Amino acid sequence: MRMVDVISKKRDGKELTTKEINFFIEGYTKGDIPDYQASSLAMAIYFQDMNDRERADLTMAMVNSGETIDLSKIEGIKVDKHSTGGVGDTTTLVLAPLVAALDIPVAKMSGRGLGHTGGTIDKLESISGFHVEITNDKFIELVNRDKVAVIGQTGNLTPADKKLYALRDVTGTVNSIPLIASSIMSKKIASGANAIVLDVKTGAGAFMKTDKDAENLAHAMVQIGNNVGRNTMAIISDMSQPLGFAIGNALEVKEAIDTLKGEGPEDLTELVLTLGSQMVVLAKKAKTLEEARKMLLEVIKNGKAIDKFKVFVKNQGGDESVVDNPEKLPQAKYKIDVPALTSGFISNMVADEIGIAAMLLGAGRATKEDKIDLAVGLMLRKKVGDKVEKGEPILTIYSNRENVEDVKAKIYENISISDHATKPTLIHEIITK
Amino acid sequence: MRMVDVISKKRDGKELTTKEINFFIEGYTKGDIPDYQASSLAMAIYFQDMNDRERADLTMAMVNSGETIDLSKIEGIKVDKHSTGGVGDTTTLVLAPLVAALDIPVAKMSGRGLGHTGGTIDKLESISGFHVEITNDKFIELVNRDKVAVIGQTGNLTPADKKLYALRDVTGTVNSIPLIASSIMSKKIASGANAIVLDVKTGAGAFMKTDKDAENLAHAMVQIGNNVGRNTMAIISDMSQPLGFAIGNALEVKEAIDTLKGEGPEDLTELVLTLGSQMVVLAKKAKTLEEARKMLLEVIKNGKAIDKFKVFVKNQGGDESVVDNPEKLPQAKYKIDVPALTSGFISNMVADEIGIAAMLLGAGRATKEDKIDLAVGLMLRKKVGDKVEKGEPILTIYSNRENVEDVKAKIYENISISDHATKPTLIHEIITK
Repeated sequence: MRMVDVISKKRDGKELTTKEINFFIEGYTKGDIPDYQASSLAMAIYFQDMNDRERADLTMAMVNSGETIDLSKIEGIKVDKHSTGGVGDTTTLVLAPLVAALDIPVAKMSGRGLGHTGGTIDKLESISGFHVEITNDKFIELVNRDKVAVIGQTGNLTPADKKLYALRDVTGTVNSIPLIASSIMSKKIASGANAIVLDVKTGAGAFMKTDKDAENLAHAMVQIGNNVGRNTMAIISDMSQPLGFAIGNALEVKEAIDTLKGEGPEDLTELVLTLGSQMVVLAKKAKTLEEARKMLLEVIKNGKAIDKFKVFVKNQGGDESVVDNPEKLPQAKYKIDVPALTSGFISNMVADEIGIAAMLLGAGRATKEDKIDLAVGLMLRKKVGDKVEKGEPILTIYSNRENVEDVKAKIYENISISDHATKPTLIHEIITK
Repeated sequence: MRMVDVISKKRDGKELTTKEINFFIEGYTKGDIPDYQASSLAMAIYFQDMNDRERADLTMAMVNSGETIDLSKIEGIKVDKHSTGGVGDTTTLVLAPLVAALDIPVAKMSGRGLGHTGGTIDKLESISGFHVEITNDKFIELVNRDKVAVIGQTGNLTPADKKLYALRDVTGTVNSIPLIASSIMSKKIASGANAIVLDVKTGAGAFMKTDKDAENLAHAMVQIGNNVGRNTMAIISDMSQPLGFAIGNALEVKEAIDTLKGEGPEDLTELVLTLGSQMVVLAKKAKTLEEARKMLLEVIKNGKAIDKFKVFVKNQGGDESVVDNPEKLPQAKYKIDVPALTSGFISNMVADEIGIAAMLLGAGRATKEDKIDLAVGLMLRKKVGDKVEKGEPILTIYSNRENVEDVKAKIYENISISDHATKPTLIHEIITK
């Protein structure tokens, strides 16, 4: 088999066989197939797409390119959640203990990564003593006993995806549904999930800017999951404005605690209940999404959810007293309100730009080497659709530097106030098969 | 400027600026832009094409990527001819002295290359003593004095094209009109031509298998030439069967001599007159193609054409007595007739496969290291449309090995005899602007 023939076949719009896809991924992982052939094939896929069978094959070829995590010693159906990423997305911190409170095993592998704020691990490290450096055996033991644990990314998972993603990033081939979908799904599958819930974000702060693109991606991933034997559901959710109020690491931990107590922001709570319901159904603890939602509301109400959070934090060396004493979380030196310049209704808060404002304060990493300041960030006081009086704070900047004119400028540029505004719809679509 | 943005722009179907095209070609030549970005852009161009302006810019960027030949010391309009390549294509050997006989300067730079037979230089080296290792000054002096000379490829011409062509070959991006057209035209322009005549072949033995593809390529090249100030004309000619009768180096020299004497095969003669007429018009020695054709026929008839061939050969150290004593050319040990197995009409001679049969005898190079046997090859005795009796020779194998069963098998597989057959049209189209 010659790689140039595989490229030409896809270029001409033909379907690649399982053998051809494996030949490409195996050869590329080993370095037998050079980058210049991989990038050329990626561009051909960009134009000619892949059908469901090819997408499933590509996903499994990437899964098989490296190690996979064996979660078989954990009892029950392991449901994983994945978000395509947004600003102020605190859902994992809430969902993990919430679902675990219903005796569903949550064996979470998480990362740090780049972005407006840190990754799930960075956020959790806001809690004094909390650490993810635990052995695999300990990880499995914790999940079996208490149903929830988080471990850092371990092993050489999906090396083909890592290599291909880095290449796509510099060759104009990121934005291809079959390539994005197989990249995400291969990582989830290699991490050992039996079932997968996907939160595909849409809008200014999301990678997918339109509902149509988000829908295509969601359907592609659900299809792949179901085709390779992993029950998969998805939602399309709004990311035109940041989610919840908090953008920043310790600030989001506090918001997660509030939400687990039933006192969280309306949109974050609704998103958590929607995604959580899908997880409960996929874990076969409920027959319908409605039944699942009731169960979730129940454990929030009776305190089992927040108790599970405490156990989870304590198990991994963290100080669980932050739940009752949130002032123990890292605190920023300065709290600076940003007042509305006119009266009216908030009509726009450009999610990704507001995220960059948080990153300017030190809440996130632009490069791998950047150090995160866990205390800083933004707390929204208003959201799109809310009424605001001139001089009333729209949000509060949590900063460790006194001069935040750059951050303020960024914020004012990206928040609009008008005579009329309506709340954006949070959940655009629910995809259950 | 970032290369990934240039790739994405073309991927999205937008027009690249002159600056962007220069950035790519300059960076790629220097090695600042890696192969994996160049191949990705090539694939994007494959799908999104380039407009006339972009094609002209790409051509000139490749011309400017290396040295160019200065023919300004040669008086008159230097018209170069290029063929996209076929089997038994002896036209250059005939055209160079023929056109020079009308006082049009023919400063030919030629190569060896890979193929069914050798390149123009290999063929000429069938003549004892002939060599192309002459200085640039001598080359220019010869052309000024006698209007015709051939020199081996010299200097670092169009390095960007060399690098890009090698990359396209292994990344499924050869077959793109803007990339093929700019590759060919950049080489001709860098070689110093003021005007260019193109012979675009179509059919089984050609790179372009259909008339439509050949037309697209021809129009693309004529457009580029005229857009960058080189008057350019083209023809589309048949390559479904080999051209003329001879396929092989010394055999083609003999056929060229016959043609210059007015005793050549009908199709080769017609092709030479058609291309030659365009050269004469572009050199401004005639106003119309009809007038030019009459002039060419005249120098064939009055012996000036064959005399010019003698002068040309002698000037470059060759034994011009081959013209009158063709037995002085390298002779093959064995001449083996291949008889028709049935009676009827020749309905097909698959050009490229017949070419491969000649290569099996040693007439051409499959790799750069192969040594050519100048004496061997094939002489067709019949062509498509000709009547043939069972047992009558269709062609003669000229070989230096006794056993040619492999060659015979190849030939029989690729020549068909039917009840009816018509001669293919030789000149499919004449493109003068």
